[in-house]
This record gives sequence, C-alpha cells and structure tokens, in this order.
Amino acid sequence: VDEPTFLARLRTLPLHPGADGLTDDAALVGGLVVTTDTLVEGVHFLASDPAGDVAWKLVATNLSDLAAKAAVPEGVTLNYPLSDPAWDSAFLAGLAEVLAAYACPLIGGDTVSLPAGAPRVLTVTAFGRSARLPRRGGARAGDALWVTGTIGDAGAGLAIARGKPGPLALLAAYRRPQPRLAEGLALGPRVTAMTDVSDGLLLDSARMAAASGLAVALDLARVPLSAAYRTFAGDDRPARLRAATAGDDYQLLFALPAGAEPPVPATRVGAFSNGAGLTLHDAGEMLPLPPHLGFRHGA
Amino acid sequence: VDEPTFLARLRTLPLHPGADGLTDDAALVGGLVVTTDTLVEGVHFLASDPAGDVAWKLVATNLSDLAAKAAVPEGVTLNYPLSDPAWDSAFLAGLAEVLAAYACPLIGGDTVSLPAGAPRVLTVTAFGRSARLPRRGGARAGDALWVTGTIGDAGAGLAIARGKPGPLALLAAYRRPQPRLAEGLALGPRVTAMTDVSDGLLLDSARMAAASGLAVALDLARVPLSAAYRTFAGDDRPARLRAATAGDDYQLLFALPAGAEPPVPATRVGAFSNGAGLTLHDAGEMLPLPPHLGFRHGA
Repeated sequence: VDEPTFLARLRTLPLHPGADGLTDDAALVGGLVVTTDTLVEGVHFLASDPAGDVAWKLVATNLSDLAAKAAVPEGVTLNYPLSDPAWDSAFLAGLAEVLAAYACPLIGGDTVSLPAGAPRVLTVTAFGRSARLPRRGGARAGDALWVTGTIGDAGAGLAIARGKPGPLALLAAYRRPQPRLAEGLALGPRVTAMTDVSDGLLLDSARMAAASGLAVALDLARVPLSAAYRTFAGDDRPARLRAATAGDDYQLLFALPAGAEPPVPATRVGAFSNGAGLTLHDAGEMLPLPPHLGFRHGA
Repeated sequence: VDEPTFLARLRTLPLHPGADGLTDDAALVGGLVVTTDTLVEGVHFLASDPAGDVAWKLVATNLSDLAAKAAVPEGVTLNYPLSDPAWDSAFLAGLAEVLAAYACPLIGGDTVSLPAGAPRVLTVTAFGRSARLPRRGGARAGDALWVTGTIGDAGAGLAIARGKPGPLALLAAYRRPQPRLAEGLALGPRVTAMTDVSDGLLLDSARMAAASGLAVALDLARVPLSAAYRTFAGDDRPARLRAATAGDDYQLLFALPAGAEPPVPATRVGAFSNGAGLTLHDAGEMLPLPPHLGFRHGA
C-alpha cells in the first residue's frame, strides 16, 4: 500500500497520547521528544555515497526533527546492518564526527546481518528535551511563513553526487546536512508552528498549512538561494522551482505572527490565510503548481 | 566487521550515562527504559512466515527485553518498509493483535520504500517504565540461576516452519512468542540479575555470567522441556542440547540468592560461582561445551 493509506490504518491502532495522532515528525514520551528515521541504500542515499557521510546524514536528519521541536539532543539509538569492514569502519568514523559535532551521545541499538547483496537499511531514533514543543499544525491565519538558510543546495548536491560537475559546497549540503539545533532553540518560544524542510519547501509548506487547517501562499521570488546554487543552476523560474521542490534541505520552516521578526537569520517566503491548499506566485504573478511539490522518499 | 568488534568500537564513542556501556539489552533515558530490535527477512524470519506473525514477533521480542527490565510497556515506534498490499494488510492486523494483547500503544515511526526485491528490514523501539531496573550483570557468587517456562519450543517450531511435520503449539512458540511481562514485574524486586533468553539458554547464561564477572554451571538434566517438545524431539542428551542452544525462547533468565524461591513458576537450572566461563553437566556428569552455545543472529 502507499504511505498515506498505511498511515491512515496505523491511526486506527491504539495510539500513545504523545503521538499527536501520528500527524507530526516527533512524539512526546515521558517528557522526551522522540523521532526516528530510516535511510535505505538506493532510495535515500546512493550506494556510492561515502559511508561516513551516510552516518552523518542518518544522525543529522533525526537531529533536524529535534531542531524543529526546539529540543536539545539527549542521545540516539542505532539499528545497523553489519557488512564489509571498510564500509563499517568509515561509517563508525562518520558517526563519531556527527555525534561529537552535536554533543549527542549513543544510547544503544541493535546490529544485524543482511542477506548477501541486500541494500543497507539503517535506522536512528533520536531523543531530546524541549521546554516548549512547537507543532507543525499551529499556524494561524495572518501568520507569515519563514525559512532559515538557503533552499535547493542539497538537491543540486544530489545531481553532483550522481556525476554532474559542480561546487563541493553543494555536494556537502547533500551529504553533510547541518541540523538547525541552535536556531530551533531560539525559535521555539516565538513560533506558532515549526517543521523542518526534509521533502521540499513546497511540500513541507503545504503540509504545515494542512496540519494548521489553513491555506498558504508562497512567493517563489523570495525563496532564498545560495550564491553557489545560482552559479550552478541559475536564478530563473525553473531553477527556483527545482530548488523549492528538491528534498534534503533540513532548514527550519516556521510561522510567526505578521510583523514579528525572527530571532535568527531567516527569510519570509509566504503567508497563511483562511482556506485550504498551497498557492504559488512569483512576485505577484500566480503560477500553476508543479506536478510534484517535493520528494516523497516513503511513498 | 563482526558484531563484537563493531560493539567494541561503538563503546569508544561518547555514550549516554543510561547506556550502561552498551553491555545490556536496554538503556535508561530520562526515566524510560528503551530497547530496540531489528528483524531481517531471511535472517530473523522466513520469507514464508505469515506477515501477521512477523508483526507479532517484532513487537514481542522488544517487549521481552522490557520484561527482563521489570518494565511496564509505555509504547513502541515502528520503522516499516512498505511493500505489497496483502503483506502490509496482514502485518497491520498482526500489529493490532500484539499491541492489544500487551496494552501497548503506538508512539510513531517511519515508513520507507525498499528497492524491488530487497529483503524486508523492520525495526521496533519499545519504551517502558520500571520501578527497579534489574541488570544482566548483577549476579553474585552462590546465586542460583533460574528460567521461566520451557526451553527449545521455538527452535523446534522453526524446524516445523521450514517444513518438518510437528505440533502447532511448537510452531506457535516460534511465530508468536509470549513476552513474560507479568513475570518480569513480579521478579524485578527479587532478582540479582535478569535477562531474556533470546539467543539460546547456554549463550544467554554465559553472557549473564560474563557480565557478572562470575562462572556459571548449568545442569542439562534440569533444563525444562515441554511435553510437546519431548514428543517431537525426544528427551535424550542431543535433544536437550538442541533445546539449550536454540534461540527465540523469550523466557526470563534470572539469578536469585541460594535458597530463595521465585514468586512465579520457574526452574532452577544452574548456579554461579567465583571464576569465569560456562560449564555444563548432566546430572553430575561433566559435558564438553557444544561448538555453538546459541544462535547469534547479529554475527
């Protein structure tokens, strides 16, 4: 079955009160924020990606979910398939780097063997502590939509990882995303809603609007692009649409009351209003929505 | 690399204080007992095993780790690879059954796609609350070693699942293990050490002794066998050795001071003493150790 159908069926099971109806990327269990992500070789990362970068990304994607909950990492568990010594050693080196970078200790885990030739499937579950838990669905009509950093770099980095020549900074954005933990902590007390941009700016904006029971209008002209991205992909409408629908940005997307300024560097990209759905414009000119709003790894 | 080498390297990373040096099956994080297990198709379960039974086993193996920590289940997260609708539906039905059977709600999770033909890899992380956390390594010299239930049924059930004719009760022991949560709660305040028998009675006894810094002597003649097992496999020494080295029993293995009686039905199978290692005897006759003490899924 597809992911929405599976999720709908999971919602018919007995749910934990902290699961928030399985509508969010993290749950609250006994005062801990809990989130989990699985990466699959050939789906979420390339077989040719360096093992150390896979370790980094596996932990970083989970910490990005904690960042969106304004949480301080408490630790991670790791479910790991043992394979060849060189890959395992490089993975461990990358794991040590990312855990040190974010002061995040290892809690435990499980190691397994896979049948010969099977693609690697790796899971990390991250635990954090948060004084106030922003929800994906808390935006109010009139709120502005903001995003940290720049958008589209990781999508360009994926093209570079697949062989297209391009700047290393974009490749690094794809392979070593930087979870916005400090920004999440600063934003936590201010935002009405927050999530991370994991599957594409348009898709994650639409999800935030849907979870909030609102419509959202996004201005393509305001989507923040890096200088490296503009050099690599250009700055025209197709390049901006590609950036806004690529995945793996791991920036924070959040709602603030109109007129409020965020406490961290960020760009205002849209606004919420009564209604439903996502509308896209480019400095005032309405645009049709692209066929895919983002990258749905799971579906 | 192999599992012990990988674990040794993980122990050089920054560890959470509740990780107990990665020496146990569960960790303590913010007052919650946390444990995680991954099942791999073709390694931990057969491709022909019914999907509902895989769901049951996936949750039950994690709840068995909670039982060994005298914990009440708080909930589970699920990392699930979507595949064909019939398998997914049967899995969901089995998941509903096992969660209802142990009053364990769903907390969250992640769904992913796998490349075509890839073996399924499923992870559950279980959360529990425990008033007192028994450790695997708490046994003292002179303590007796006890085990709940009967041993070897699941190993016989695996042979039946692979096509050997035999009683359904043994097949059920393999496919639908019953985590000993009630027994774990009753034993928690009394035991000096506790673990579950997941990889074989001999192997898990040896691990408990090693973690406790002690030697353990196990009496093969006292290993409790079910009537169904004796009918299926016999009651001679080879049959008893097979039972004591098969995996997937999910009984509780625990240490009590000499002379103390357990508060739940259980069988005394051995005793701890100063020294190191496992010795095996059969009603007084010393036996050589079999080449494999159990079933190491991960190695």
